Amino acid sequence: MDASGPVRVALLGCGVVGTEVARLLLTDATELAARVGAPLELVGIAVRDVAAPRDPVVDRALLTSDAEGLVRRADVVVEVMGGIEPARSLLLAAIEGGASVVTANKALLGQDGPTLYAAADDAGVDLYFEAAVAGAIPLVRPVRESLAGDRVTRVLGIVNGTTNFVLDRMATDGLELDQAVKEAQALGYAEADPTADVEGHDAAAKAAILASLAFHTRVSVDDVHREGILAVTAQDVALAAETGHVVKLLAVAERVADGVVVRVHPALVPTGHPLASVRGAFNAVFVEAESAGELMFYGRGAGGAPTASAVLGDVVTVARHRVLGGKGPVESSHAALTVHPVAEALTRYQVQVRVDDRPGVLAQVASVFAGHGVSIETVRQARADGDQADLLVVTHTARDADLAATVVDLAELPVVRAVLSVLRVEGA
Amino acid sequence: MDASGPVRVALLGCGVVGTEVARLLLTDATELAARVGAPLELVGIAVRDVAAPRDPVVDRALLTSDAEGLVRRADVVVEVMGGIEPARSLLLAAIEGGASVVTANKALLGQDGPTLYAAADDAGVDLYFEAAVAGAIPLVRPVRESLAGDRVTRVLGIVNGTTNFVLDRMATDGLELDQAVKEAQALGYAEADPTADVEGHDAAAKAAILASLAFHTRVSVDDVHREGILAVTAQDVALAAETGHVVKLLAVAERVADGVVVRVHPALVPTGHPLASVRGAFNAVFVEAESAGELMFYGRGAGGAPTASAVLGDVVTVARHRVLGGKGPVESSHAALTVHPVAEALTRYQVQVRVDDRPGVLAQVASVFAGHGVSIETVRQARADGDQADLLVVTHTARDADLAATVVDLAELPVVRAVLSVLRVEGA
Repeated sequence: MDASGPVRVALLGCGVVGTEVARLLLTDATELAARVGAPLELVGIAVRDVAAPRDPVVDRALLTSDAEGLVRRADVVVEVMGGIEPARSLLLAAIEGGASVVTANKALLGQDGPTLYAAADDAGVDLYFEAAVAGAIPLVRPVRESLAGDRVTRVLGIVNGTTNFVLDRMATDGLELDQAVKEAQALGYAEADPTADVEGHDAAAKAAILASLAFHTRVSVDDVHREGILAVTAQDVALAAETGHVVKLLAVAERVADGVVVRVHPALVPTGHPLASVRGAFNAVFVEAESAGELMFYGRGAGGAPTASAVLGDVVTVARHRVLGGKGPVESSHAALTVHPVAEALTRYQVQVRVDDRPGVLAQVASVFAGHGVSIETVRQARADGDQADLLVVTHTARDADLAATVVDLAELPVVRAVLSVLRVEGA
Repeated sequence: MDASGPVRVALLGCGVVGTEVARLLLTDATELAARVGAPLELVGIAVRDVAAPRDPVVDRALLTSDAEGLVRRADVVVEVMGGIEPARSLLLAAIEGGASVVTANKALLGQDGPTLYAAADDAGVDLYFEAAVAGAIPLVRPVRESLAGDRVTRVLGIVNGTTNFVLDRMATDGLELDQAVKEAQALGYAEADPTADVEGHDAAAKAAILASLAFHTRVSVDDVHREGILAVTAQDVALAAETGHVVKLLAVAERVADGVVVRVHPALVPTGHPLASVRGAFNAVFVEAESAGELMFYGRGAGGAPTASAVLGDVVTVARHRVLGGKGPVESSHAALTVHPVAEALTRYQVQVRVDDRPGVLAQVASVFAGHGVSIETVRQARADGDQADLLVVTHTARDADLAATVVDLAELPVVRAVLSVLRVEGA
């Protein structure tokens, strides 16, 4: 590239985010050029169907269906098409051709991030992906640069706005899950097919990216334990409020003795915890580090304009590197930590059991916990009618496998009529 | 510097933060070397008195009182001594000598940041200062890099942990200010002389740095309108709670028509706002940007280990640049915005006035507001005893000068016995 010439930017994809990126490259050209040190020239936009209707801001002369050819003409390739293929092949071709790459593709990075990170490292080019983790929230730079002299021990994230909106509506108005999902769909916060959100697939992909970043190790979405929110009831949410908690779908990545555990599941969060007040479609990521202590990053996790803001921040950084020299840090996997199954996680459970309402029952229930080495913090009788009673048991921290085995044995206890709910407690 | 050799680090100052930085450079040497791409060698620690008692982790052989000489032997100079001189001269000497610089010195940057930014830019070296704004909270990289493709419109920060602790204690236990300050002193959250905190000097320095960063313009602490928390009473805090607010000392930097206004003062924040739940000695910075929307960064704003974490993150970044090439962005002041006085700020007031309790008084009070073009949002009668009544007036957004003039005229109105309190309302 001619040092005094423009930086050639190729856009792969022209949906909501791509259109917004194209618009900002046009309208903010002067300011962006000042920040980069050279003009950014949008040389083409790869789309599947060049004839499809577009926002008038998109210069139709830039549209092409030849993504491979476009990639070869660019200094910076911006991928906002989503999905695994052809995004993966195009990004690898861009990297091998010496272009810097910016992507918002959480599914691709969640599944195959380490391959892309290694390819970028080998080629000596930048790979930036701020928009892939939590939309507009600056998270990648803080974790990989600001905390480069520290050690992250735990990451707790609300990284899916759809489920956070749904759980929030259940909490504020007592809606059942399906009602809240319908409302989210009506407002455009949930897709017609909400599976990727409510079953936790989206959060799991982001958890894999977050864990790779925070612990300098390789984590794929297949390593992430995943439970969605489908089992959460209005009663769970109401009961949580009674005990001073809110129910949140959390992405948790944490160090354990000789490795990491990465998991996505609904959890009880104490109302005084900073994550508890993250409302509606907002996202937040809570980070615990050895020296820095507790940090939280909060903002919009989705949407065209917020995502475009994160993408453009990355474009400015990688374009500056091309003009002025330098390169961002690499997602090194030097730590090479083992990813353990959720069984090895250290966590707490809240178990709600319906039992016969007679003397000696509590002792039997308690002995099941004790038999698995699980220490009980509190037991509370939630409801009783003389015949049956509902007990709410909260444990101290224990191995997830021991907690799970306790719940299995509880269900088989003759005095236990039903295990009504089981939720992990985090952030306490 | 030999590309394969160590990066020579000089430490200026060896107080709580300096000692912690020295400790981490020693204990985390292997991990830091992996992240930098070369070992970090601590070549010396400049102190005033080499004979003074030190933490045993500090290698006494490294101590020197010749700071000027030390600076000439370093690739990276880390300044954690504080104060204006000799810190300023040493940093300028380091920059002119071609060293990269990391500083935690908010007083210096608040007063004379633009001189240092310009010197680093001219010399082509890095100047990083993550620890100077909000301790361990990553803020500088997010604002100057992640948001490089966006436009910040407003920054609201809780950037002084001492005053946040004091106001929090007033809110939770109804303490008066002096009691809460004494408690903060007893717990080590406030200095024996708390002036710099309670009068808002510390927050004003940080506000100047934040505003320079966010708006790419020159702001000095002298441009910052400053009111401390000394006038805040337990009654103000209790009344705030009644109306769904908390009182916070805010640093506010915002765009106005053709410039910026930067101010530090106590303000009412609605309890639902993310800043309202920032408790105790924590800090948080809330950023509004055109595309990204609302963002918040939360964490520990002070303390040896958190500050050392931020300093070391900067050391790793600038050392990487020396090993691998490249340079961080510069605090360009290309925007060259005018800094307007607080009179030009657009804000809202809550005014509490004690008036004669008789017909027609409200009309007289309302006409004073109307006379200055200030629109009233709500009026509430807080207390009345038949003889006198307390009115709580909340305005719509108006020019600060018009609001201030309204308050002056109110106090002169014969039916007004006293203006009991005046607080700005932010984040609503």
